[in-house]
Amino acid sequence: MSEAAREQRLRRVRALVGRGVDAIDTPALVVDLDAMERNLQRMADFAAGHGLRLRPHAKMHKCAALARLQMAHGAVGVCVQKTDEALALAEGGVSDIYISNQVVDPAKLQRLAQAVQSRPDVRWAVAVDSATGIERLATALTVAGVQAPGRFDVFVEIDAGQNRCGVEPGDAAAALAVQVLARPVLRFAGLQAYHGRAQHIRDATGRAAAIDLAARAVRTTTEALNRLGIQVPLVTGAGSGSFALEAGSGLWGEIQPGSYLFMDADYAANEALPGAPVFEHALFVKSQVMSRSPDRAVVDAGHKSHAIDSGLPRVAQPPGLDFANSGDEHGILRPASPDGTLPELGETVWLIPGHCDPTVNLHDVMVGVRGGLQQGRVERVFEVDARGALG
Amino acid sequence: MSEAAREQRLRRVRALVGRGVDAIDTPALVVDLDAMERNLQRMADFAAGHGLRLRPHAKMHKCAALARLQMAHGAVGVCVQKTDEALALAEGGVSDIYISNQVVDPAKLQRLAQAVQSRPDVRWAVAVDSATGIERLATALTVAGVQAPGRFDVFVEIDAGQNRCGVEPGDAAAALAVQVLARPVLRFAGLQAYHGRAQHIRDATGRAAAIDLAARAVRTTTEALNRLGIQVPLVTGAGSGSFALEAGSGLWGEIQPGSYLFMDADYAANEALPGAPVFEHALFVKSQVMSRSPDRAVVDAGHKSHAIDSGLPRVAQPPGLDFANSGDEHGILRPASPDGTLPELGETVWLIPGHCDPTVNLHDVMVGVRGGLQQGRVERVFEVDARGALG
Repeated sequence: MSEAAREQRLRRVRALVGRGVDAIDTPALVVDLDAMERNLQRMADFAAGHGLRLRPHAKMHKCAALARLQMAHGAVGVCVQKTDEALALAEGGVSDIYISNQVVDPAKLQRLAQAVQSRPDVRWAVAVDSATGIERLATALTVAGVQAPGRFDVFVEIDAGQNRCGVEPGDAAAALAVQVLARPVLRFAGLQAYHGRAQHIRDATGRAAAIDLAARAVRTTTEALNRLGIQVPLVTGAGSGSFALEAGSGLWGEIQPGSYLFMDADYAANEALPGAPVFEHALFVKSQVMSRSPDRAVVDAGHKSHAIDSGLPRVAQPPGLDFANSGDEHGILRPASPDGTLPELGETVWLIPGHCDPTVNLHDVMVGVRGGLQQGRVERVFEVDARGALG
Repeated sequence: MSEAAREQRLRRVRALVGRGVDAIDTPALVVDLDAMERNLQRMADFAAGHGLRLRPHAKMHKCAALARLQMAHGAVGVCVQKTDEALALAEGGVSDIYISNQVVDPAKLQRLAQAVQSRPDVRWAVAVDSATGIERLATALTVAGVQAPGRFDVFVEIDAGQNRCGVEPGDAAAALAVQVLARPVLRFAGLQAYHGRAQHIRDATGRAAAIDLAARAVRTTTEALNRLGIQVPLVTGAGSGSFALEAGSGLWGEIQPGSYLFMDADYAANEALPGAPVFEHALFVKSQVMSRSPDRAVVDAGHKSHAIDSGLPRVAQPPGLDFANSGDEHGILRPASPDGTLPELGETVWLIPGHCDPTVNLHDVMVGVRGGLQQGRVERVFEVDARGALG
């Protein structure tokens, strides 16, 4: 898209501020600001009440304004998964950014190191799970001229049970910490222990068992480090499905939930954990009926509007409708019960995305609404700053 | 993302032109230009050989430069699915654009009508399946000052068997054509008959049976129109999985394949149709190994890099690897056979996306490579002009 066209589209969206919900073009990503702010406060209260640092995962919203809002409500900083997400958020005024993921590509490390050098106002961190990763990081920082002792935080990522990234818990992890400590520009900040798959285990008991294993991995690694005379400054990890478990373990000092802010259909299907706050759906796709037959209503939102990796969207409004996937640009609604009714041509239909993170990544903007989806007004527009920031 | 940051990212990608494939940051969408051009020519030859108009579906690539390339190779124009795709392509110099989908939202019709009025150099068309849609379209054109008789082409969409959009074949469809004919600014251009679900029926016999039913719907409707003394100027439809069947029926005069240009893993899994040209994979996600354990290699491409609605990506290079989904930012590779080997940390891995359309929609740019994925050089960069153009 040309700059002119892009500007025109943005202007059109920004012109919505102050107008009613009806004026929002479909399909569009809409944030219920009231619900979002309640979610924001509930998580801040939970973290404060448990003496935990809160570092929300910004991979979910990819938005500097929301990251700053979270930090204004008690978060110590944010996580991201990608170098280019970190750079986009830093440019958007976020001052504490942790890439809770592996970065071993010299080109990316060069971009990161240059940002570290040029932005002394930002606290930076990354996870490592290999000797090569540590060496390349230290080299990139040196080449970029970053020299101040402990300027850059490094967390050693352990495999907490997901069998994805992360070094084996115990001695192998301790050896990486030793290597980090040998590089003055790096600060050994602690352990990254996140079990992504555990977040989506439906029953609370199964989720608790998975996090128990993650806790064992943390203990094993802490003991290996202690045997070398090394203390673990911090254990960071946990997501929106499990944070109450990590909090209860007493091992984690920092939690990284992301989805709590918007709450998607997938997380809502989890059995609640004892003691965990309840979050409300705050992210919706506004769609409308574009074709209507006696037995179905077709809406203008398909999987270019909402990600379906974690299941189909649920219909929030009108009630009593089932959503069936019908390709990239269409969704099909049918009554959930035999006596149900279908919306008419042109009628608005509100969807709750199955998975908020990749849904947000499909959109350039999110429209923030105050006063509810039925009668509310557009209060602000959030740009998805790191949309498509894959590198 | 700020304009400055966006420009910086685009500059970085454009600076790749002339450089080797190794310089492309990961994950990135890469087009094998040699393979793509062979696909382009094969489809052009097929359409010409069968006396068919070729109107490729640009919902797939969303790129004005590729649409113009297709038109330079015999295509009469392109299809899109969304009003904002049409506007983005028109702005990118595409002169014949058909929205092969329903547009009933007055706001979208207003944008479209204003574009029709301000761009007399572009031939515009849309599909309709309701009286409301026709009335609103005609009203929007009138309000925008579009008056020339037959200025705007309208295809009546019939339900060709997919049970999504489209009016019932036969008299109901004929009644809509009569309504179109009553509006001088509209030209009744013919029938839209596309069976999307049929494209992905694996066995050739099952696909042929589905298109037989679609052909019956076309015949029923044509007969109903003929009874009213109305001729059908053109039947348009067909996709990359079925176009040889529509061509063989003698009913369709125009075909709308999109994916043939890039060819994804899902279409490649189809049983070939007799007489259909074979297309090569021309679209790849370049990724690299970011974490390595004895039993797995983790690449930096997850489902924010490639859509998984139609199945996981296949690993093109290195050979002998299975891809397992591991979330938004990661993919896990394991050897496909017990004696297989894994790529090392930092090694490049080429993926063939499961579904090209929503994969392209995740990316701002596609990097065009000449001379193959191993030794090639970057020749040009394609912007995905209509990325995120959902409205």
